[in-house]
Amino acid sequence: MSERVQLIMLPGPTMVPPRVLRAMAKPIINHRGPEFKELYLGVIEKSKKVFMTKGDLFILSCSGTGGVECAISNAIGPGEKVIIPVNGVFSQRVKRTVEIFGGKPVEIPVEWGSSVTVDAVEDAIKKEPDAKALAIVYNETSTGAKVKCMAELGELCDEKGLLYIVDAISILGGDELPVDDWKVDICITGSQKCLMSPPGLALLSISEKAWSAIERTNRAVYFDLKAYRDYLKEGETPFTPAIPLFYALDEALDMILEEGMEARIERHRRCANAIYKALEAIGLEMFAKEEFRSNTVIGVRDPKGIDGNMIRRIMREKYNVVIAGGMGKLKGTMFRIGSMGNVSMADILITISALEGALQELGYEFDRGAGVVAANEAFKS
Amino acid sequence: MSERVQLIMLPGPTMVPPRVLRAMAKPIINHRGPEFKELYLGVIEKSKKVFMTKGDLFILSCSGTGGVECAISNAIGPGEKVIIPVNGVFSQRVKRTVEIFGGKPVEIPVEWGSSVTVDAVEDAIKKEPDAKALAIVYNETSTGAKVKCMAELGELCDEKGLLYIVDAISILGGDELPVDDWKVDICITGSQKCLMSPPGLALLSISEKAWSAIERTNRAVYFDLKAYRDYLKEGETPFTPAIPLFYALDEALDMILEEGMEARIERHRRCANAIYKALEAIGLEMFAKEEFRSNTVIGVRDPKGIDGNMIRRIMREKYNVVIAGGMGKLKGTMFRIGSMGNVSMADILITISALEGALQELGYEFDRGAGVVAANEAFKS
Repeated sequence: MSERVQLIMLPGPTMVPPRVLRAMAKPIINHRGPEFKELYLGVIEKSKKVFMTKGDLFILSCSGTGGVECAISNAIGPGEKVIIPVNGVFSQRVKRTVEIFGGKPVEIPVEWGSSVTVDAVEDAIKKEPDAKALAIVYNETSTGAKVKCMAELGELCDEKGLLYIVDAISILGGDELPVDDWKVDICITGSQKCLMSPPGLALLSISEKAWSAIERTNRAVYFDLKAYRDYLKEGETPFTPAIPLFYALDEALDMILEEGMEARIERHRRCANAIYKALEAIGLEMFAKEEFRSNTVIGVRDPKGIDGNMIRRIMREKYNVVIAGGMGKLKGTMFRIGSMGNVSMADILITISALEGALQELGYEFDRGAGVVAANEAFKS
Repeated sequence: MSERVQLIMLPGPTMVPPRVLRAMAKPIINHRGPEFKELYLGVIEKSKKVFMTKGDLFILSCSGTGGVECAISNAIGPGEKVIIPVNGVFSQRVKRTVEIFGGKPVEIPVEWGSSVTVDAVEDAIKKEPDAKALAIVYNETSTGAKVKCMAELGELCDEKGLLYIVDAISILGGDELPVDDWKVDICITGSQKCLMSPPGLALLSISEKAWSAIERTNRAVYFDLKAYRDYLKEGETPFTPAIPLFYALDEALDMILEEGMEARIERHRRCANAIYKALEAIGLEMFAKEEFRSNTVIGVRDPKGIDGNMIRRIMREKYNVVIAGGMGKLKGTMFRIGSMGNVSMADILITISALEGALQELGYEFDRGAGVVAANEAFKS
């Protein structure tokens, strides 16, 4: 395997700081002993600060998709209706998960690159007054569009008695999401995005209202939240946890709390802003509409006549910078830059510089250097 | 957290060699890029050698229980009967998983500490001729009893047209289990037992016969084997994999293949034998009947009048040796020693020595030193 050190600018996984990587090399401990108990309870307490919740929180050994499955399979009973705004690959996946586990998805179709409005959700609730839940992807990793009315939707769900289930996988820890203030009942994220840990853990917060829904269901084994709750009393997980990933997340959470959530969100905002300014200066078109632009995932349309796969290949092979392509129906039409976790000004200047180099090599016409200058300027302001 | 280095003699997780721990600190890579493809395909190829299969094999980011759920939820359709010999906590869990996912378990009750016979399974098939599968726990981690007729059961399933699903979590890589020769259709193991890797990965082999069952079902998302098969064509997993754990497993598999499976199984047999000899010399009673004794998990009844929790506590606090207690209905009645993975003569002499120390402190009467002498003798033979 290559010995080159790559700059990973993916919408997950993201760069893991050396301090976090090193934490994984600690010796294995008994997952039913006092050492793991201390580790697990500590990770939960720190995670609650990042989620800004006083509710329950669990750490599962699986990816973010496993976390979403856990939320749906525990909280939604057979035949129950779930309103789902669909504007990308990950909201499609939420819809499919509801179907597979016997719920009835009520789709609100939303243009990809755009996001749902409060009015659209209100209309859906009017049409389906017996809907049990709203399940929404806060930040569509496949397009780079984020929902702008999350707090209002929380109020609406609270008022109408719907569960508010939020897939916050590519945004929590990098943008605003005060779980309790926004009345989120189940919030899911993954370790490998804004939390700058290796992939393999999903984090779920559970409100009191969510528990009353969960009590009625019995369709999960590995993702059985009631088992997670029972075992938490002893500071344990029901099944063997991925211990090294807990070490890593623990260290990453320390770093996150040392930086402070406010400063962290501001850093993400500034980094994303610099990328957007740079891309505009290069003359590229974002996939998401300006008002819905994400602060963590930047989706960009391939320039006319230029193969996006070649852009990514040159960036990776010549510049050691790794970005992502399109997903689902957007494959071959766009590329995506993750600006999350430990991301810094230096990372962005290297990424833009590599992108400019690749574009020039592929014959794209633009004012060479304009992107780097624009990014630099953005960081000064 | 304690800085003491503990000797983990649990029935999983087991000690992870430093070489394997260090492998996790490698930088994060793109799970949709050439670096992960090389890693993933390499791990699969090496795992197939350990499983002794030419069939398909997948690595899931979850614990062994997640792997069992994957097997059941993919291979068993609604209302389909599954014959399950139940002789411990983990076979109970297989039964529950079948129920939760809509199958009909046909339990063969087996005395705990004992194991099922071919006759009993034949009888069950006669009574339930439409049974779809036999799901069996090869090595009951909760008792230390292993099934002695695995090859014969494979023949029987083949003859009768049943799927043969084997939970080999606490045994594969430490005892005989040639998956293809024994006609196992789905074989599941975890990374943290005999494979001496950190917990967090499950490995599943899938036969052609198993695929034809899986094609008909559609009840999994995170554990959807058809998605795993589709993504494998690109050398990818459908959902973000726990990358550092793949690095670790890759390194551990190299070590396993360097040692050779035959030598490895013989080492496990010799280590377990030394433990049994030592325990007998101390006058302790095994939980499993002699003919069913496992070569990887040793279950021991608490001596009369001695609190097993205190044995374990003294061993941990004074000797830094960590063993397990009883599970389920056996809690508070026994302790369990894992002798798996990287286990060596030195580990066993320390463990027996610590056990003797704890027993003496608790007033148990025995010939002090007899266990260590017996273990030493056993290794000489």
